[in-house]
Amino acid sequence: MQQFDTVRALRWTGTTLELLDQRRLPHERVVLKCTRAQNVAEAIRDMVVRGAPAIGVAAAFGVVLAAQHATDVARIRIEIQKLAESRPTAVNLFWALERMGKVLDAGGDAVRLEQEALSIETEDIAANRRMGELGATLIEPGLAVLTHCNTGSLATAGYGTALGVIRSAYAQQRITQVFADETRPWLQGARLTAWELQQDGIPVTLQCEGAAASLLRTGQVGWVIVGADRITANGDTANKIGTYGLAILARHHGVKFMVVAPSSTFDLSLAHGNLIPIETRPMSEITSLAGVPIAPAGVAAWNPSFDVTPADLIDAIVTERGVIEQPTADAVRALLA
Amino acid sequence: MQQFDTVRALRWTGTTLELLDQRRLPHERVVLKCTRAQNVAEAIRDMVVRGAPAIGVAAAFGVVLAAQHATDVARIRIEIQKLAESRPTAVNLFWALERMGKVLDAGGDAVRLEQEALSIETEDIAANRRMGELGATLIEPGLAVLTHCNTGSLATAGYGTALGVIRSAYAQQRITQVFADETRPWLQGARLTAWELQQDGIPVTLQCEGAAASLLRTGQVGWVIVGADRITANGDTANKIGTYGLAILARHHGVKFMVVAPSSTFDLSLAHGNLIPIETRPMSEITSLAGVPIAPAGVAAWNPSFDVTPADLIDAIVTERGVIEQPTADAVRALLA
Repeated sequence: MQQFDTVRALRWTGTTLELLDQRRLPHERVVLKCTRAQNVAEAIRDMVVRGAPAIGVAAAFGVVLAAQHATDVARIRIEIQKLAESRPTAVNLFWALERMGKVLDAGGDAVRLEQEALSIETEDIAANRRMGELGATLIEPGLAVLTHCNTGSLATAGYGTALGVIRSAYAQQRITQVFADETRPWLQGARLTAWELQQDGIPVTLQCEGAAASLLRTGQVGWVIVGADRITANGDTANKIGTYGLAILARHHGVKFMVVAPSSTFDLSLAHGNLIPIETRPMSEITSLAGVPIAPAGVAAWNPSFDVTPADLIDAIVTERGVIEQPTADAVRALLA
Repeated sequence: MQQFDTVRALRWTGTTLELLDQRRLPHERVVLKCTRAQNVAEAIRDMVVRGAPAIGVAAAFGVVLAAQHATDVARIRIEIQKLAESRPTAVNLFWALERMGKVLDAGGDAVRLEQEALSIETEDIAANRRMGELGATLIEPGLAVLTHCNTGSLATAGYGTALGVIRSAYAQQRITQVFADETRPWLQGARLTAWELQQDGIPVTLQCEGAAASLLRTGQVGWVIVGADRITANGDTANKIGTYGLAILARHHGVKFMVVAPSSTFDLSLAHGNLIPIETRPMSEITSLAGVPIAPAGVAAWNPSFDVTPADLIDAIVTERGVIEQPTADAVRALLA
């Protein structure tokens, strides 16, 4: 089998969480070494590491670091709280911290917490492999796919969610090529997805978001495939800004729309997507690029990092537990039961 | 009345066409002085000057320069052909060259050609003012508008097409504020539209194209207002890449969609939009920004500069001759007769 995991977002050494600084990819490979929970929280906030599952894994190791250095449990709980405040939308972060918190509640020490974090990491890779298999079977051979943002090895513990499906589908010769939105303002598509696919030898063509409608109109694309940062009880899905518009464009052109996310992405405490907190990031992410201004000084910008795609625009949600087609609250409940 | 024309894309001195180099705005104001037709053709090709009406005006002065330096009419015709090859999609270019060619056919000399070019310039400003009035009346007061690319003074001889409507509507207190797509890959929204509106004191908020669907969903926006590079006999409209997707998103959210373009933008020789030649520009416009690579070396990119919005997604086409609501071939024919 082809080896896809040459790229890794994070690596745990036993005392240090090494993060590949994704802000500097693809042109520089800089590793940030986190030896304290606070370093991990800052790295998540500053997007050294991003992607909902990768954030969850990183935060889990952050708790391990807290435990390795803490003199009492109260201190660890403070660090968990700080990690929880690093970013608001991806629920995998809170899911991982809750899982670590339960181990702590049960009297787990740093060694036991480390085992839990390693399990979260290992399970994420296994979930991605399984989703890759399940998602690929939905794809009729012969067409291209379009993806948005980065959902690959860099966004997860390895292999990827949407990009995992794309990898599996390409290995099975079900897709001819990948179109990737560049994904402004952070350019995760241009910087990360194109780089990962290039390394795997999967043909990839970059485009600006504005070209998506024209592409879908050509009939070259069979599926739009994306990840998720949070999925509510009815199947509404928060994901990178631009996803909701893509779902509308896909439906308009009769192109199918697939969300790929591990079950840790579901937030059953929220009935629908309007309840998901959407992070708004600094205007400067839009008005400058790599420190260079690209707009006049002082202009206002609106920079929501995520949007919400209603369940009725989604043809399939692929999880490691199975696939939901035409998602509804009943179908979500049945899958996760 | 508020003075809106502090910004000018071009200025004719009698012997030189001065072009404000739009590639370097808003941070540098560099003027390129064209003394030969060939300079003008290159400036159009390289996007020193852009925007369909501005390209037409620039090309007309290019013909004047050709006539001022030519020893025979055949030489002028060659220069006209070179100007025509500078960019393929905006029909205003060919319309202006045809108008200049007719003067030449009638034995017009450099002085007569200069009068014609000045007329084209003056008429464009007048058309924009008229469109501004007509378009503004369509807008029910109280909401924001969303625009794409740059259609202002920089894209025309002055005042602007879509931005002219926005200027008029803002002066009449019909709109609360303007949202502007940054408009990748050239960032005309961020660099040019934001700058023009800022100078006019019209509140503007930049966003990435990916945020448009979320914005339209909020109900803040009453109209999406754009320009056009070519409108076919049935009302199908070529405009900056991203426009077609915006039209779909607008319809999905019940937001109205207005195209603002002078009658010189119509190409009645084409029955529908699929026949419009769409310029594909270099991959490097997507994979690098201001000379800095933003994607891995060697990655492919698809860079169509324009897309086609079908007439049935357009609520109003505003021209200086009047407004067409729900455009059809009959309505277009009636307006232009």
